[in-house]
Amino acid sequence: MPKKTSKLSIIPLGGTGEIGKNLLVFEYEDSIVVIDGGVKFPEDELLGIDLVIPDISYLEKKRDRIKGLFITHGHEDHIGGLPFILPKLNIPIYGTKLTLGLVQAKFQERTAYPESLIHVLEPGKPVRVGDFEVEAFRVTHSIPDAVGYSLLTPVGRVVYTGDFKVDYTPIDGQNMELGKLAAWGQEGILALLCDSTNAERPGVTISEMAVGKTLREWIERAEGKIIMASFASNVHRIQQAINAAADVGRKVCVVGRSMENVVRTATELGYLRLPEDDILVASSEVGNMAPEKLLVLTTGSQGEPLAALTRMATQSHRQINVLPGDMVIMAATPIPGNEKLVNKTINHLYQIGAEVVTKEMGQVHVSGHANQEEIKLVIRLARPRFLIPHHGEIRHQVGFRRIGNALGYEDEDIAITQLGSRVILSPDRMEFGERVEAGSVYIDGLGVGDVGYIVLKERQQLAQDGVVIIVTALSKTKPYRVLSGPDIIARGFTFMKEAETLVEGAKKEILNTLEIQLQKDQLEWVVIKTNIRESLGKYLWEKTRRRPIILPVLLQL
Amino acid sequence: MPKKTSKLSIIPLGGTGEIGKNLLVFEYEDSIVVIDGGVKFPEDELLGIDLVIPDISYLEKKRDRIKGLFITHGHEDHIGGLPFILPKLNIPIYGTKLTLGLVQAKFQERTAYPESLIHVLEPGKPVRVGDFEVEAFRVTHSIPDAVGYSLLTPVGRVVYTGDFKVDYTPIDGQNMELGKLAAWGQEGILALLCDSTNAERPGVTISEMAVGKTLREWIERAEGKIIMASFASNVHRIQQAINAAADVGRKVCVVGRSMENVVRTATELGYLRLPEDDILVASSEVGNMAPEKLLVLTTGSQGEPLAALTRMATQSHRQINVLPGDMVIMAATPIPGNEKLVNKTINHLYQIGAEVVTKEMGQVHVSGHANQEEIKLVIRLARPRFLIPHHGEIRHQVGFRRIGNALGYEDEDIAITQLGSRVILSPDRMEFGERVEAGSVYIDGLGVGDVGYIVLKERQQLAQDGVVIIVTALSKTKPYRVLSGPDIIARGFTFMKEAETLVEGAKKEILNTLEIQLQKDQLEWVVIKTNIRESLGKYLWEKTRRRPIILPVLLQL
Repeated sequence: MPKKTSKLSIIPLGGTGEIGKNLLVFEYEDSIVVIDGGVKFPEDELLGIDLVIPDISYLEKKRDRIKGLFITHGHEDHIGGLPFILPKLNIPIYGTKLTLGLVQAKFQERTAYPESLIHVLEPGKPVRVGDFEVEAFRVTHSIPDAVGYSLLTPVGRVVYTGDFKVDYTPIDGQNMELGKLAAWGQEGILALLCDSTNAERPGVTISEMAVGKTLREWIERAEGKIIMASFASNVHRIQQAINAAADVGRKVCVVGRSMENVVRTATELGYLRLPEDDILVASSEVGNMAPEKLLVLTTGSQGEPLAALTRMATQSHRQINVLPGDMVIMAATPIPGNEKLVNKTINHLYQIGAEVVTKEMGQVHVSGHANQEEIKLVIRLARPRFLIPHHGEIRHQVGFRRIGNALGYEDEDIAITQLGSRVILSPDRMEFGERVEAGSVYIDGLGVGDVGYIVLKERQQLAQDGVVIIVTALSKTKPYRVLSGPDIIARGFTFMKEAETLVEGAKKEILNTLEIQLQKDQLEWVVIKTNIRESLGKYLWEKTRRRPIILPVLLQL
Repeated sequence: MPKKTSKLSIIPLGGTGEIGKNLLVFEYEDSIVVIDGGVKFPEDELLGIDLVIPDISYLEKKRDRIKGLFITHGHEDHIGGLPFILPKLNIPIYGTKLTLGLVQAKFQERTAYPESLIHVLEPGKPVRVGDFEVEAFRVTHSIPDAVGYSLLTPVGRVVYTGDFKVDYTPIDGQNMELGKLAAWGQEGILALLCDSTNAERPGVTISEMAVGKTLREWIERAEGKIIMASFASNVHRIQQAINAAADVGRKVCVVGRSMENVVRTATELGYLRLPEDDILVASSEVGNMAPEKLLVLTTGSQGEPLAALTRMATQSHRQINVLPGDMVIMAATPIPGNEKLVNKTINHLYQIGAEVVTKEMGQVHVSGHANQEEIKLVIRLARPRFLIPHHGEIRHQVGFRRIGNALGYEDEDIAITQLGSRVILSPDRMEFGERVEAGSVYIDGLGVGDVGYIVLKERQQLAQDGVVIIVTALSKTKPYRVLSGPDIIARGFTFMKEAETLVEGAKKEILNTLEIQLQKDQLEWVVIKTNIRESLGKYLWEKTRRRPIILPVLLQL
């Protein structure tokens, strides 16, 4: 059949209705193109979970149709899932130099991804994959070498901005290719997928250059050692800090695994320029150096319990001690949910007697995502027929829709998607198809996707009220009797002061339950255990207002 | 000996180095006066803890010297601990009418506190207790009837602001008594204890009146049902919402236990005036009412899992459903740590199709604590010899010290206290004495102070990796052999895909350990259990990178 009768499907498997684990699927007949494969950091209630990645069952089923995976930039929420996803798909990947460098760095921690499948992409040089012609265009963001993508498809051109802000004075001089967007807009764009993270924020974001100015002021003012914590991937901020350090005659020490990785990769690939060859010093040397000659770049801006800054703040870092009079610059704001951890770190630093520079005290951080006026600019330039907010929770998607409405778009021309939504596009129509399998895969320890809902529920309950184990042995033959126990073991559950009476009461409770059951001709394990669970549960709730997990362990001998 | 040679001790048992559980002790010879007795809401790592209150061992030892407990205002972090603290001390308490009303409401949930010990206090009417003359003065805060205290002591006058902001246009017309503060300042104030919560925030706070204006605008604009969530204790905000509702012809439904309590108490005592006698409707009636005729006042502004708004947002509230087109006003900002929960509620509401009004969209909340310029004003008026920041974490206390420095105070004239610090004041000197016993008491379920560090550690580990229980029965007599098991039970710990092999491996591991032990003439429980824990722990860590709690359960039959 003639292609024109077919339609394009756009399926977000991650990054919609949520911030994190971005993954977009574009499907036209036998051609599938994927954009990004990120991770998300677990919600508090995902106890003990390390990472969350998108469920890619849908892609696994159609693996042989996937023509390639294109990466917008090197942030964890766009590349962090690749080490888990790519080995299952074995597909060619495309991205800019730094982005691929950071991906390879992730793989080097595991078995490397085959070179033959890795393709460096030049913005402005389209590549043909299946029925798509994919072209990257430069955007400005909080990491260098970030791009958005244009997909020229049989039904029309679709553009995805990727994460972006409109920074007119980017540190590396690589401007956002607004002209390109405008040109495509003239030709006609069918649909625009747009970063909606900051859709609730009025006005425009501030340029990274402003942060550089503020950093320089603080660095010039500092008397003791300077410790700056920021996101490892913010190469531009790191560059500006290093430049300022050089100008005031300070050496730079890079601490923290991810920070070391990024600085190494970015330097090797020429995205980070060291003003002096010998400006970097090893953390082992820090002890012997004069504080006023030193700038430490470190991870831990989010108060992560194991990060370098956190260990420094708690005086438990092997090489670097924070001293009274040192200056700690928190060049990042807490990601929602991290406020308490960050606050704790800051308080520890004050306790030591350090000066702590936070956002309240000057422009030491700016967002990497477009505010309302920048989003409007991009929509006006692209002039798309349809709008699809991406990279946002529903509050951000709805905020984006309000912006679209303000620019004259009807609600039905703006698709608010969910995970697995199938947006079907024809040249003149946008509609929702049947949802595909989508969701979250939890990564815990070494296993992938091995932690189910039940287990999490259990951990939650364990965390709340602990566990009470009842051990008792019953005779094999009639008359059934209790050979030993019931013994009670508790963990994470406390019997409070009137322990004895409570334990005695609990045992009586159990024995009463058993008595009835032991009369029967046949002992029914399930029934006995359920009854014990119920009667003891009721008893403990009345006495302690707590609901520990109750585990009856029965032996028959 | 002549009094003048004695000294005054000021001891914070709560509310310093932290936000919450405020409790200040003033001690002069045989006279002790206490101010406030609050609770603090638990940190995330205090798994399953409901409340945290100050450790008052110090006061219990000196109970017969305590002349009275004075309360500044009715917020939880100032009165929430009283139902646990007062029964242990049985001392007279003093406070303004509304404050005591709220305290009694708390007690009515338990056994009431003896009327004979409760004294209503009039600002401006000093009371003599022991060696102190205590006088309340009005301050403006986010709850009516808030006061600070002046303590006239043998060594001089000490003033504690309590929680305050300088609101020149308070809703109830009860202005902050700045003149009083100035007059005392003229006479000479020895030390000022001052609210330092917002010491990092420049400028001044905005008047509660501004919130009223914004609320009215939204309430007039709304088409469907209006649901407003705020702190229950913010009587002024509730008053303004009710007034606006009355003006647009909406009835008001009050939902949520604490909200109902406060509205009842405040109305009874005349702090909340209902513009129409029949303006309140029961939540049972809401179902039959036209949405545009209704304003629901509810708890849940912090996304608390069990609060009314949270249940409405998840469509699980018995009487009140949120419908598309309803307007939900979040008239509060998240307390640090609650951001994620609040965000989740907001997203649920958008999912339903409600319009959600947050602080980003207009002045629907203001802080109740003084910013830098207000703190400066109070210091200038009081002109104290010494400064003691209270009600703040160390970052806020240090922020307050910066303000003090800016006004010409030396560091040594500003006391940065910790829990249990003893600040010793003589007419011309401020120094630190020996710290007294102080800290936190955890309240969990019905018990008080019954949850120890170990239990919390256990809960943490359970929450991370769960628990694995090993059950096995051994013979009583030699040759010792395994009669049953080892059986393995796991909760919150998952054996992943290769379950069987892992379980088998674990059993082998245990049997090997047992085998060695069973050779011995005497079975040593402790040794056996320890060995099982170690060998199995090692095995599971290697295979799964997790450390569940391992509980060997041995029976001998």
